[in-house]
Amino acid sequence: MRTPAQNAQLALLLEVAGTPKPGNVDRRRDLDDLRFEHFLAGAVGAQRGLEMAANGAAVGRSFEVAIEGMSDQRGDNTQFGALLLTVPLVRAAREELSPSAVESVVEGTTVDDAAAFYRAFEHVDVFVSDPPEEMESLDVRRGRDAVPTLEDRSLTLFDVLERSVPGDDVAREWVYGFERSFLASELLATANGTPLDRTAAVFLSLLAERPDTLIAKRHGDAVAREVTDRASELLDRDALETEPEAVETFADELVERGVNPGTTADVTAAGLFIALECETLEI
Amino acid sequence: MRTPAQNAQLALLLEVAGTPKPGNVDRRRDLDDLRFEHFLAGAVGAQRGLEMAANGAAVGRSFEVAIEGMSDQRGDNTQFGALLLTVPLVRAAREELSPSAVESVVEGTTVDDAAAFYRAFEHVDVFVSDPPEEMESLDVRRGRDAVPTLEDRSLTLFDVLERSVPGDDVAREWVYGFERSFLASELLATANGTPLDRTAAVFLSLLAERPDTLIAKRHGDAVAREVTDRASELLDRDALETEPEAVETFADELVERGVNPGTTADVTAAGLFIALECETLEI
Repeated sequence: MRTPAQNAQLALLLEVAGTPKPGNVDRRRDLDDLRFEHFLAGAVGAQRGLEMAANGAAVGRSFEVAIEGMSDQRGDNTQFGALLLTVPLVRAAREELSPSAVESVVEGTTVDDAAAFYRAFEHVDVFVSDPPEEMESLDVRRGRDAVPTLEDRSLTLFDVLERSVPGDDVAREWVYGFERSFLASELLATANGTPLDRTAAVFLSLLAERPDTLIAKRHGDAVAREVTDRASELLDRDALETEPEAVETFADELVERGVNPGTTADVTAAGLFIALECETLEI
Repeated sequence: MRTPAQNAQLALLLEVAGTPKPGNVDRRRDLDDLRFEHFLAGAVGAQRGLEMAANGAAVGRSFEVAIEGMSDQRGDNTQFGALLLTVPLVRAAREELSPSAVESVVEGTTVDDAAAFYRAFEHVDVFVSDPPEEMESLDVRRGRDAVPTLEDRSLTLFDVLERSVPGDDVAREWVYGFERSFLASELLATANGTPLDRTAAVFLSLLAERPDTLIAKRHGDAVAREVTDRASELLDRDALETEPEAVETFADELVERGVNPGTTADVTAAGLFIALECETLEI
């Protein structure tokens, strides 16, 4: 039987393998400098941090170690957001995994967890928007230089992520009880086809449900909305079943435009972890 | 920096992802009941056994634990042969990884290692040929029931595998200093393209060099020879570079015929491990 840390690692691997996942690296698609093998190495490298979380270590430090290991490949950021969701979920799986268990984990984070989160940004180049002026001293790109400000203001990791909502739907999961991650796990359990077919179906459902916040940060709200509208049309037509080539075309087009729904992939990975851990998805 | 156990896990993942790998599951191909995600789960599940080998545990017991973990998915046997090669290599990597270091590991195996190897067959359905009559009491399909015979005859794991040569080119690696595994690692270091392109190139080279012994066991020597001749022609024409569609066609044809060069994949995985561990292949 797989441990929670192993289920998290497998969730990262299934997420990247699921295809078609419009705009993202998948079993059939690479981006120019970010390829499938970088995600494989990222998942392998994250292992120690995931094991720390499973063994009860602090969320922030476990996350920092996971990111340090993940970044030991040349593709740079592969699973930063996915690990920001799976690390607290793994921590919560020490008891029975549920929305309230993970809520209690994230609400229990400390200023030290926030400091470790900021240090994690020193290992990897994560795309972030400029913060509002009053938050400048807390720009994550400052890395450990932001720690004195965190301490002065007694900000926990939960507090930091709460300030990123709305606008960042990974942070939103922390604040709203991992609502979409649990929804994704339910969809994975009931979707048709192989585990990788289900991964693709759930990715498209999530993309159709809310504009992807990584796309919004990189390309603006209009592009994020357009992508969601297109996903929604495909979903309404049950295109994965009835006209799979239309989804493949959409996937290729987004890759060509460099439009990557990274947040949607992160929530998909979190859903995969929950489904594996709760044994509603068998491989 | 990845540990030897993590490099072994990554080697298993890169091996299955490399494409085209004629006849085998790869990034673009599944078999009917053996799919890409089974190999992902197999690699994740093998982790504990690989860590045991890295920490100096006995080769046989490490292998048995790796196989038990690997088999925790519904595809049945995914990486039995690859682990029979990577476990002693991981064990040898505790010092400097070299042909003589791994020779010393395999020659140092004991009767207990042989017993653990036989127990490993109870976790998974491995394709094997009927043994000659005088070896019947040592048929691996007997699992732990063969252990008294091993003990009576004082057969180590090395002795057992030596008796499978010729006819099994995984066992041959044990007997001939992992010759082709080290050759594969050198080819990986000098091949062109991305790590997954190199994996495909090395797989084709190995397949062209010697008839695959899993094919020979399942389909006879003539089929194994035919596949190697075809691979050799493609290699001579540098087909991966000059006419990749010819290799894709060959790959699809072998999958349709159910002809899987599994031994060649095992040696490819071993070569990937050596190349990762010696840092001649970077991801």
